Amino acid sequence: MIIDKYNKRVEKINSLVCVGLDSDFEKIPERFKQLKFPQFEFNKWIIDQTAEYTAAFKPNTAFYEARGDAGMRELKMTMEYLQKNYADIFTICDAKRADIGNTNNGYTAAIFDWLGFDAITLHPYLGSEALKPFLDREDKISIILCRTSNPGAGELQDLVVQATGLPLWQIVAKKVAGEWNKNYNCMLVVGATYPEEMKKIREIVGDMTLLVPGVGAQGGDVKAVVEAGINSQKLGIIINSSRGIIFAQDPAGEAKKLRDEINLYR
Amino acid sequence: MIIDKYNKRVEKINSLVCVGLDSDFEKIPERFKQLKFPQFEFNKWIIDQTAEYTAAFKPNTAFYEARGDAGMRELKMTMEYLQKNYADIFTICDAKRADIGNTNNGYTAAIFDWLGFDAITLHPYLGSEALKPFLDREDKISIILCRTSNPGAGELQDLVVQATGLPLWQIVAKKVAGEWNKNYNCMLVVGATYPEEMKKIREIVGDMTLLVPGVGAQGGDVKAVVEAGINSQKLGIIINSSRGIIFAQDPAGEAKKLRDEINLYR
Repeated sequence: MIIDKYNKRVEKINSLVCVGLDSDFEKIPERFKQLKFPQFEFNKWIIDQTAEYTAAFKPNTAFYEARGDAGMRELKMTMEYLQKNYADIFTICDAKRADIGNTNNGYTAAIFDWLGFDAITLHPYLGSEALKPFLDREDKISIILCRTSNPGAGELQDLVVQATGLPLWQIVAKKVAGEWNKNYNCMLVVGATYPEEMKKIREIVGDMTLLVPGVGAQGGDVKAVVEAGINSQKLGIIINSSRGIIFAQDPAGEAKKLRDEINLYR
Repeated sequence: MIIDKYNKRVEKINSLVCVGLDSDFEKIPERFKQLKFPQFEFNKWIIDQTAEYTAAFKPNTAFYEARGDAGMRELKMTMEYLQKNYADIFTICDAKRADIGNTNNGYTAAIFDWLGFDAITLHPYLGSEALKPFLDREDKISIILCRTSNPGAGELQDLVVQATGLPLWQIVAKKVAGEWNKNYNCMLVVGATYPEEMKKIREIVGDMTLLVPGVGAQGGDVKAVVEAGINSQKLGIIINSSRGIIFAQDPAGEAKKLRDEINLYR
C-alpha cells in the first residue's frame, strides 16, 4: 500500500517531519532570484539541506502557479530532482483541488502522472462521488481537508449537523474513515492549531494518518500535536513546517530541531 | 463595479450564455492536435465561432493543468487572445481553489494578475477569513461553490444545520449574500441540475448573480433554470455549457440555439 512509503521512510530516519516547499519567489534569498530557475534552485538547496530529517516534502501549488507556466515547470523540475535523488521520501501536492467527476481526471493527470506526486490535498464540499477519480487511484493518497489550521476554520467546519449533534468537521472525519477510504488511500488534514479537535479526530478515524500543518510560523504546539495525533503504532501524523524551516537562517538545523522535538513527545 | 462588465455584455448581445472552454486534449478534433499549440488553436477557433452569442467564457483549469506547463501557457495565450479581441466578454477561471490566508495570494497572482481573469470559482469550506485575498479584490469576482451540479452534491451540501433547520448549501448562500459580499463582488455556483434549490437560493440572495453549470451534457433543463434563476432585472444568471457547445459539430449553431432557448423563457 502507498501509505507504507511514508511509514517506511519514517522508520528509516526516525522522523515525522514534513518540509513544506512554499517557495514564495518574493521570500527566497536574493542569490537564488538571479538564477535561471530560482524556485527550483532554492528547492534543490532546501531538499539537500533537510532531506536527512525529512519523511515528506509538500510543495503548495499556489506559490508556483503565481509565476505562471515558469513556476509549474520549476515544480516539475523539483519533483524530478526528488524522484532521482530521494525516491523514498513521500511527496504531497498541497493543491487543495476538487472538481466534479471527469474534470478531476485533469487534476489526476497533472498531479499524480505529470508531476508524479504520491498524494494530493482535496476539498470535501462536493462529496465522494465527485472525488472518485482521486479515490479510485489505489496507488495514490487522497488527503481530505477536515479541520484546517486557519483562525476562521470554524465558520463552516463548526456548524453542528442536526440529528447527529456533531460539527461538520467530525462528520467529514467519519465519512472519510467509514466510507471514502475503501482503498485504504485516504488521509485527513487536521491543523496543528486545533489539538482538541485532533484528539477527537484520532478517536474517530482509528490509525488513519493525519497531515498536520500549522506548527512553526502558524503557532501550533508540537507537544500538543504529538500527544493528540499519534496513533497506536506511534505513527499516523505528518507534521509539516514550511516557512519556519525553509526561510530560517539554518534550514537543516530547524528541520533537525523539529524532528527532535517531535520525537521527545512521541 | 466589475459585475457591470457581465451585465453590459449581456445587454449588448442579448445573451446569458457562457461557453465553457473545457478543451480536453483527448477530445479536440484531430486537426488541432497536430498544431504547435493545440488547446490554444482550438480555443481560438471556438471563441471566434461563438463570441457573438457569448457573454462569458469559462475555461476549467483542470484541462490545461493536465498538460503541465504547456497547458498553462496555452491558457495564458487564450486569455491574451480574448483580451485583445473580445475585451468586453466576461472571463471566469473555473479553478475551484481555496487555501488559507496568504497562500491565496499565489492564486490571485496566478489567476487574476498573470492570466487576467475577471472571476474565479472558490470552495467555501475554509470560511471567509481564509478567502480574504480573493474577497478584498474589488476589481475581481469571487464565485463561491454553493450547490454543485454533480449527482452526489448532497452528501455534504444537504446536511441540515442544527438550530437553523437549513441545509448547508442554504447556509453558504446566506453567509455569502449577508457577510462575504461586502465589496459587492461575490457570486454563487448553483448547478442547473437542481432547479428547486436554485429557486430557494434566488429567494435568499436577492439579485446576486449565479453561475449555472450543468445544462447540455449534464442534463440540466434550460426552462427550469431560467424560471428559477433569473433575477428582478431579467439578469442574474450565467448559463454555462461546455461539451454541449465546444465538441458539437457546429459550435456556433449550438451557442446560438442555447441563447435563443434561454431568451424564450427569459
